[in-house]
Amino acid sequence: MALLARGVSRIIASGQATKLVSTTSMKSLSCGRGLPFAVSRLACSSVGCAGGTAVPQPSHRWFSTPAAESARTASVIEKVRLDSSGVVEVEWSNGGVSSFPYVWLRDNCQCEDCHSAMTGFRCVMIKDIDPFIAPVTAEVVDGKSIQLEWPDGHRSEFEWQWLQDRSFTREAREQRREAKRRKLQLWGSEQLKKLQPVDFEALMTDEMALYEFFNIVDTVGLAFTNNVPCKVGQQQRLAERIAYLRPTHYGLHESSVYSKPNTSNLAFTGQRLHCHTDMPQYSLPAGVLLLHCVQEAEEGGENELIDGYNAAYQLKEKDPEAFHTLTTTPVSFAMHGKDYIRYDLEKTRPIISLNEKGEVARICYANQLRSALMDVPVERVQPFYRAMRAWDDILYHPDNCILMKLNAGEMVVFDNWRLVHGRRGFQGGRHVQTAYMDWDEVRSFLGVVRRERNLDN
Amino acid sequence: MALLARGVSRIIASGQATKLVSTTSMKSLSCGRGLPFAVSRLACSSVGCAGGTAVPQPSHRWFSTPAAESARTASVIEKVRLDSSGVVEVEWSNGGVSSFPYVWLRDNCQCEDCHSAMTGFRCVMIKDIDPFIAPVTAEVVDGKSIQLEWPDGHRSEFEWQWLQDRSFTREAREQRREAKRRKLQLWGSEQLKKLQPVDFEALMTDEMALYEFFNIVDTVGLAFTNNVPCKVGQQQRLAERIAYLRPTHYGLHESSVYSKPNTSNLAFTGQRLHCHTDMPQYSLPAGVLLLHCVQEAEEGGENELIDGYNAAYQLKEKDPEAFHTLTTTPVSFAMHGKDYIRYDLEKTRPIISLNEKGEVARICYANQLRSALMDVPVERVQPFYRAMRAWDDILYHPDNCILMKLNAGEMVVFDNWRLVHGRRGFQGGRHVQTAYMDWDEVRSFLGVVRRERNLDN
Repeated sequence: MALLARGVSRIIASGQATKLVSTTSMKSLSCGRGLPFAVSRLACSSVGCAGGTAVPQPSHRWFSTPAAESARTASVIEKVRLDSSGVVEVEWSNGGVSSFPYVWLRDNCQCEDCHSAMTGFRCVMIKDIDPFIAPVTAEVVDGKSIQLEWPDGHRSEFEWQWLQDRSFTREAREQRREAKRRKLQLWGSEQLKKLQPVDFEALMTDEMALYEFFNIVDTVGLAFTNNVPCKVGQQQRLAERIAYLRPTHYGLHESSVYSKPNTSNLAFTGQRLHCHTDMPQYSLPAGVLLLHCVQEAEEGGENELIDGYNAAYQLKEKDPEAFHTLTTTPVSFAMHGKDYIRYDLEKTRPIISLNEKGEVARICYANQLRSALMDVPVERVQPFYRAMRAWDDILYHPDNCILMKLNAGEMVVFDNWRLVHGRRGFQGGRHVQTAYMDWDEVRSFLGVVRRERNLDN
Repeated sequence: MALLARGVSRIIASGQATKLVSTTSMKSLSCGRGLPFAVSRLACSSVGCAGGTAVPQPSHRWFSTPAAESARTASVIEKVRLDSSGVVEVEWSNGGVSSFPYVWLRDNCQCEDCHSAMTGFRCVMIKDIDPFIAPVTAEVVDGKSIQLEWPDGHRSEFEWQWLQDRSFTREAREQRREAKRRKLQLWGSEQLKKLQPVDFEALMTDEMALYEFFNIVDTVGLAFTNNVPCKVGQQQRLAERIAYLRPTHYGLHESSVYSKPNTSNLAFTGQRLHCHTDMPQYSLPAGVLLLHCVQEAEEGGENELIDGYNAAYQLKEKDPEAFHTLTTTPVSFAMHGKDYIRYDLEKTRPIISLNEKGEVARICYANQLRSALMDVPVERVQPFYRAMRAWDDILYHPDNCILMKLNAGEMVVFDNWRLVHGRRGFQGGRHVQTAYMDWDEVRSFLGVVRRERNLDN
């Protein structure tokens, strides 16, 4: 917990804009892995919340039987059999049988000729594999692996753990999917007050602090850092600790948001920006948005922040018809103008996108950019507006909407597929730097650290 | 046609690797719009081919009636009526009635208070709109527009053309969708010989040459340029003419591909690279791949190029079951290592992705990166390999697979969602620069040029 600074951004529940929240009464909670993570008590969702433990489970934990524990000494594989249905059957010493298709085993031969240890690439070509291939012999080696011989004399050996980790049973596949699910923690305005900022210098020097910071962005949806130098270029420094910033039509790296004349974007005025997500006009809206306050507004300029996943699940519960409408009505988001480059972008998608399991996966909501062109029959238009109104009411509800004023030297990093954010109108020389990253780069970094530090084991 | 240089990359039909194709017998064809476009006779697909005219139709061309032609002088709107079903009914002078929902009209009021002309943004907030709102009066103004008055006294005026362009009828919506479809031209190894390179200097100085070049990348899937300086940085120069390069784990801008020791990527060896698409391990594989030959190999190093859309449609026709298998079987592509950054990426998707109309939208095929982990029941494994083999046979068929050796000073730019490419093994100091762009930036540029030059009118 040494990484945590005691200061905290002024987080004010919406509707109580004049009240500054005292931070002294907040108890900073730490989850099981010692994360600087003060939100373990946040309301858990039904979509993969693991009770505050944000670190995914290893993909092979399903094999936690006594036989596995003693596998280093005892025999694990009892028998191997070539089945006429085109699979190798492996009988385990602790009971149970697993089936592995012949052609899959040939394709995934792990010998140096077939699989490059240096690059991790498969060297076997599809054209060299007969889909109907069958081994001529199969045998158990030392009770720990199986060895197959193919018609051309080539031999392949597979260790028991490698096979177990790739089991085709329904249970094993379900458990692997489950282990990969995002561990989400939904929140409202009350819970978010407990989230404490991390010292920027720690993120610059300590890889585990950086890992934990972005893990929180992944699970909670946002994280704060403070003591950030009050000059441009800090998001780039942060991004380059793990990857790079994403270029957009706003700029190659960061873009400076302050009031300027003759702009093609409402963000570059002092006007209020209603709650939205960024970049719905892109095929892949940026996954992560970084806002760094270089100079705070003399008056106004507070950010509104809402957990869009939480809001979407509330809508689903309160008004299933509206939820269905917003997950199925195609909405076009269009934008053209000139920032760093000239641009003319348009993308059509529902406001709430679900994944293949029906879980909320991405919010794309920017009323300002919503096109008047609609590709729906006329009778679906009014129900769509009714649904948007129900959604909007939930977003702005004081239980959901946080009002927060970033001070100079503070940065908030958040999930732009999840958080809906707005900005109150402002007066004076407010200067906020905006920058983007993609989830691929952030999750890749988390994976690299887990792999290198063996965090899953 | 002055932009076309007479030289052409050595394009050799696969299986005839020793034969140099003479370019003198090729007739360079120009399509209707004067594009430097030698492939008008390519086989047309059923997915939006417009007979060689690559430029999309304007979204409002459907209203090409005599009444529209004379609209500047004559009355266009006959009557307007408030219907009890919640729509404004507009009766056109040339017959026919269109319906526009009340709430949609209020939401899309075009007055300066409701819609910012400077930014193009909607200023009306959802919370300020009653989904059940109804105008109190409606009238026709000069036979050219309608004016509505709302219960609070606010007035909205809509011109006839604005309304026509946003009609909700099934026919109008279908025609708008049709106008937006990509105009694709499928090809095999024979047709591609006719594609001639464009002089690089023209791309650096002439915006229309640049527009036409990327239009060909969009419709045909690839375009060549020659007389490119034989030094690094040329793809970046080209990209910066329209936007920027996409950073990847290979590098922020270009990456240099030559044989190097201790690599985590087969591309950085002299070994053969089997046919694949790039970046299937990313959420959004790069849309456009740029290969620039700085120094050709002493021996080998030819590229194999295949129109993956054409191959997929051939598979669909010849082996519908295999096509179904490859469009529905989830395949994981995984890659970890260290290039410009450390990375650990994995993405699961079918090899052939279809759009909502069932048309082929994206090929993701990289056998080298295909994970041994499969999330399918064991009985679906062997049919998957059979389907991959059928697909692979079509890809490598001499009618489909072009063998092409880039000379120093040549660049090929191609659609990485469509073209499947490989590289023969090589000896000697081959040096090719690789870089990526996304389709958003390329199509945005095409849209900007069309808008600024009024190309749709």
